[in-house]
Amino acid sequence: MPRTIPIGIAGATGYAGQELMRLAARHPAVQVTTAMASGGADGVRTLPVLARVWDGDITPLSVDRLVAETEAVFMTLPDSVAAEVGPALVARGVRVFDLSGTFRLRDPAQRRRWYPATPGFVEPAVYGLTEHCRAALPAARLIACPGCYPTAALLALRPLIDAGLLEGDVIIDAKSGISGAGKKPSERTHFSECHGSVAAYGVFAHRHGAEIEQELQRTVTFTPHLVPLDRGLLETIYVRARRDVNEATVTTVLEQAYADAPFVRLTGGTLPEIKHVAHTNFCDIGWKHDPSSGRLILVTCLDNLVKGAAGQALQNLNVAYGLDEATGLL
Amino acid sequence: MPRTIPIGIAGATGYAGQELMRLAARHPAVQVTTAMASGGADGVRTLPVLARVWDGDITPLSVDRLVAETEAVFMTLPDSVAAEVGPALVARGVRVFDLSGTFRLRDPAQRRRWYPATPGFVEPAVYGLTEHCRAALPAARLIACPGCYPTAALLALRPLIDAGLLEGDVIIDAKSGISGAGKKPSERTHFSECHGSVAAYGVFAHRHGAEIEQELQRTVTFTPHLVPLDRGLLETIYVRARRDVNEATVTTVLEQAYADAPFVRLTGGTLPEIKHVAHTNFCDIGWKHDPSSGRLILVTCLDNLVKGAAGQALQNLNVAYGLDEATGLL
Amino acid sequence: MPRTIPIGIAGATGYAGQELMRLAARHPAVQVTTAMASGGADGVRTLPVLARVWDGDITPLSVDRLVAETEAVFMTLPDSVAAEVGPALVARGVRVFDLSGTFRLRDPAQRRRWYPATPGFVEPAVYGLTEHCRAALPAARLIACPGCYPTAALLALRPLIDAGLLEGDVIIDAKSGISGAGKKPSERTHFSECHGSVAAYGVFAHRHGAEIEQELQRTVTFTPHLVPLDRGLLETIYVRARRDVNEATVTTVLEQAYADAPFVRLTGGTLPEIKHVAHTNFCDIGWKHDPSSGRLILVTCLDNLVKGAAGQALQNLNVAYGLDEATGLL
Amino acid sequence: MPRTIPIGIAGATGYAGQELMRLAARHPAVQVTTAMASGGADGVRTLPVLARVWDGDITPLSVDRLVAETEAVFMTLPDSVAAEVGPALVARGVRVFDLSGTFRLRDPAQRRRWYPATPGFVEPAVYGLTEHCRAALPAARLIACPGCYPTAALLALRPLIDAGLLEGDVIIDAKSGISGAGKKPSERTHFSECHGSVAAYGVFAHRHGAEIEQELQRTVTFTPHLVPLDRGLLETIYVRARRDVNEATVTTVLEQAYADAPFVRLTGGTLPEIKHVAHTNFCDIGWKHDPSSGRLILVTCLDNLVKGAAGQALQNLNVAYGLDEATGLL
Repeated sequence: MPRTIPIGIAGATGYAGQELMRLAARHPAVQVTTAMASGGADGVRTLPVLARVWDGDITPLSVDRLVAETEAVFMTLPDSVAAEVGPALVARGVRVFDLSGTFRLRDPAQRRRWYPATPGFVEPAVYGLTEHCRAALPAARLIACPGCYPTAALLALRPLIDAGLLEGDVIIDAKSGISGAGKKPSERTHFSECHGSVAAYGVFAHRHGAEIEQELQRTVTFTPHLVPLDRGLLETIYVRARRDVNEATVTTVLEQAYADAPFVRLTGGTLPEIKHVAHTNFCDIGWKHDPSSGRLILVTCLDNLVKGAAGQALQNLNVAYGLDEATGLL
Repeated sequence: MPRTIPIGIAGATGYAGQELMRLAARHPAVQVTTAMASGGADGVRTLPVLARVWDGDITPLSVDRLVAETEAVFMTLPDSVAAEVGPALVARGVRVFDLSGTFRLRDPAQRRRWYPATPGFVEPAVYGLTEHCRAALPAARLIACPGCYPTAALLALRPLIDAGLLEGDVIIDAKSGISGAGKKPSERTHFSECHGSVAAYGVFAHRHGAEIEQELQRTVTFTPHLVPLDRGLLETIYVRARRDVNEATVTTVLEQAYADAPFVRLTGGTLPEIKHVAHTNFCDIGWKHDPSSGRLILVTCLDNLVKGAAGQALQNLNVAYGLDEATGLL
Repeated sequence: MPRTIPIGIAGATGYAGQELMRLAARHPAVQVTTAMASGGADGVRTLPVLARVWDGDITPLSVDRLVAETEAVFMTLPDSVAAEVGPALVARGVRVFDLSGTFRLRDPAQRRRWYPATPGFVEPAVYGLTEHCRAALPAARLIACPGCYPTAALLALRPLIDAGLLEGDVIIDAKSGISGAGKKPSERTHFSECHGSVAAYGVFAHRHGAEIEQELQRTVTFTPHLVPLDRGLLETIYVRARRDVNEATVTTVLEQAYADAPFVRLTGGTLPEIKHVAHTNFCDIGWKHDPSSGRLILVTCLDNLVKGAAGQALQNLNVAYGLDEATGLL
Repeated sequence: MPRTIPIGIAGATGYAGQELMRLAARHPAVQVTTAMASGGADGVRTLPVLARVWDGDITPLSVDRLVAETEAVFMTLPDSVAAEVGPALVARGVRVFDLSGTFRLRDPAQRRRWYPATPGFVEPAVYGLTEHCRAALPAARLIACPGCYPTAALLALRPLIDAGLLEGDVIIDAKSGISGAGKKPSERTHFSECHGSVAAYGVFAHRHGAEIEQELQRTVTFTPHLVPLDRGLLETIYVRARRDVNEATVTTVLEQAYADAPFVRLTGGTLPEIKHVAHTNFCDIGWKHDPSSGRLILVTCLDNLVKGAAGQALQNLNVAYGLDEATGLL
């Protein structure tokens, strides 16, 4: 019988944390031994929404307990807390899957700009876009899981850029459900302000833009919008294909890139929509090419809490531990 | 040429206050001379959402300025502020249309329970359910505009109870959009908590229940629910008709009661729905009777920010000043 | 190694059918060998939304193939088709879990009224409210899975009525997401008609009312409403408790009834909401009692496509085949 | 006392037609004498949603009656019907404000592609983007009111292009509420398919793209998306500014262009959102410029049924008849 990996979830009460709890609960190879929330003073809590799924206590954050009780920890903590706890855990032998963003950017200047709490010295992290980092995962001790927006954008663009198919600007127009903004109430996420509305935010100033640029090594215009739904995001990506590229070339390159990827579904000219990926770990990618103008439009979507957060983190664990990549995620 | 009534809006930034600004701006017989917000320390504000509709400044609350600049004031202030400002304005000759609730309950014990900030002595207020208080309005100096839930319930039930048609319990199951919970962010009104959900609240403990009981002189079971929409509420009312009553009796009584009411639309067996009344001052009422059981179901709906707040307040002003009741509201 | 049960899904393209496909795909003890749609002339179809979950073809309905390839069939077919196919399958040795409603009502007059396509002779069916029919399932050949509304209502009411705690009328005010109305476009389910609206329907005339009355042996007033969300329903139930009953009595009776029920979560005075049960097989039940009036309010909710349809059907299969009741459903 | 213009609404039952009814009912200078629906065989209808707003009958389409009873007609008819009725009305002396699209495109090849029903000979129409065609309206007999998407795009782009500020590609990423897809039920507009989802459609193949290109005389990439709300659309426009252009240049040009425009609100760096324009005739425009890349992003939004349809049509009537442009629209 296969052994069970004892894991901890540090930051179990936020939306990504709750989703981790749900997914981990039905994952046959892990056991959540420890669930913690960062607001240490709050004492022990339970989450009614998780009743019967995971009925343990959610306790205040404790590195000592995580070290004692777990082998791997998923962190969905505030940046400044993650910046401290992550290296501490790694130093004491715990493998860390970080969802906070703190360890994603490699350029110190970029990191200081977007994650000011970053410590001076940082453990080298593997950027955990599963489909493009499988080989590095088994040895990795600190995995920086990608942001939700970058996951969708990079899965669509990386194979095309690696194959040299694209020219010129990259524009990513993203539409995200409100759960991406987290669980903390604010005017921006107040129901009556979001319902029946769409709003752009973070224009020319969203840290996921820097993350996408780092991974593509290209300048990117990234504009996120809030749309009135809970879970899921869709990105419409505007690029130009090289003169000799057509829709079939794109198809071939993407199909080769994802031939063995259980969670990337290529939909071709039938463009994907959020409803088809909500509550799943799939990233769906479609595309259309206009030969007369050379314009290529890619549409890519995923559930920001699953493939964009908790699901991808578990997918990374699966690969890191040599399990089937899809274990517990289909 | 008819004169224009200078009015003030005290509490202009909340949802009901904004709706008052919009409606007053297109009302031909009033002019908003003064718009104030209760958070006095905030200084002068503007409301981008009202640009071109009303471009004046929203200033800190000042009774002196309201007295100097207005003849009538609409108050959508926190209870404790309204409890103080309302009587002060009336004492200095300003007519007050209160939307806060503070002056609705007449029984001192009930008032203390639901509106603890109420002052010991209170100016006698007219309960401003327009269709049932027209005669009292011209002389009234303090008009306690009804709550959104009571408006819908009372318009449906009062004629039937006055006519002695009903027996036994009254159960009101209400479904309201989230704007009824106001503009202040909270976990309860966070988009991701409300979207895709329905939740009961204030069961056996909502102050609108006390208000309905006062006006009907009956015991009422009132259960409000939040449903994922912004504006509008619908109530399903369960009563029993007297043995000799049938659907036609109900129709006759309601048609007589509202023969001259421009904003009550009787839909009979075609039950009303929120979409038909959103952004209007209408209250739509439908009903179905089951002869075998004697059960009568009334369904009534309105826009909580218009007929349930700002619209009804202006309707009261129209009647109080001898204008056509529908002025500025159709 | 445990054997795998070959199952068929007859009616795989509707919303309940899709959910069955999803749940069955991750159920460790069943294998979907056959998926069919009732529109026979359409030829073979695939469902993009199910790509990678179940990639087989959806073929035209064929009793012969179901008999040849499966041991148990889940039917989400139109009433008239189910009325014919169900008995034919049973006669040829296939166990049938019916979700269509055709076999739920036992009284011939009621059945003719609400399911006119019912055949004259009908195989005796077990009414499959899992928590209350476990003993009958292993021997059952035709299981009439309950409707979504009745499931929520009966789980809350049956133990209290069986214990003799209630008196007088039963009123059930139900609020359902639009997926309950099925996949066929209509004006009633058109996005712009539902968004921002709430509407009652089927007042005094919904077949689920008859189903609830049959199972409770009581007269019930049942009023469903459409609310603007996709999945989930919530029912607010108004009853009267016997004079000597209090909140603790209710708690005791419900806790005893569901001590071993993995999918009934009792929330007591913290009333449940749809968001907590969406995409799960849970039915959450809460209650509040008002001692002064004797009024008892129960609030119960579930996901209409899971516990109200596909999930409960699989739960019935689990019990029928002697598996752990929660297999594949947590 | 000013005279009242007798108008007809041909196509009164669709969403744009209903909005015309509502707006015309409170317009002080027009009277709806005639409301018709194109489904001639249906006989006389009423619209419960318009009760008390306009209680006349909606009769089958009749050119003779429109000629006899009206001076100006608003057409929201199917393309092929509008193509026939429009010229017939103009020929008989009725001024026509067309909302169907049939008369917008001037190039015969484009017209045949996107509006195949167009007659061979077509009355020269004025393209009725009010803010940019005021001088032509008084003499115009056939006004082709712009589409909802083009209205938002052109109001933002035309002044900048006319001033020669932009270079290179124009990309318009549009997000629209579902009412833009009309009142006819379809799988695409079924509630459960739209709720919680976002989907692109008409990529490289939407007739509003051709309309925008005609008016800008530029190649444009236009990608519309459906987002889960009822009314309103928002467009994110990606262009490049000339090297010497900065945010202040853009501000100056737009402020000059719309100094006298009552319905264009310039929000500068505070980007607009749909909620602020829903149920109004405003088009809000904001912009941000990134000096390092030269990238300029414009965000523009409006209510597709008001400024994008019924409101703009009435605004055109106001100008055509020499009334104040904002009459009945604020």
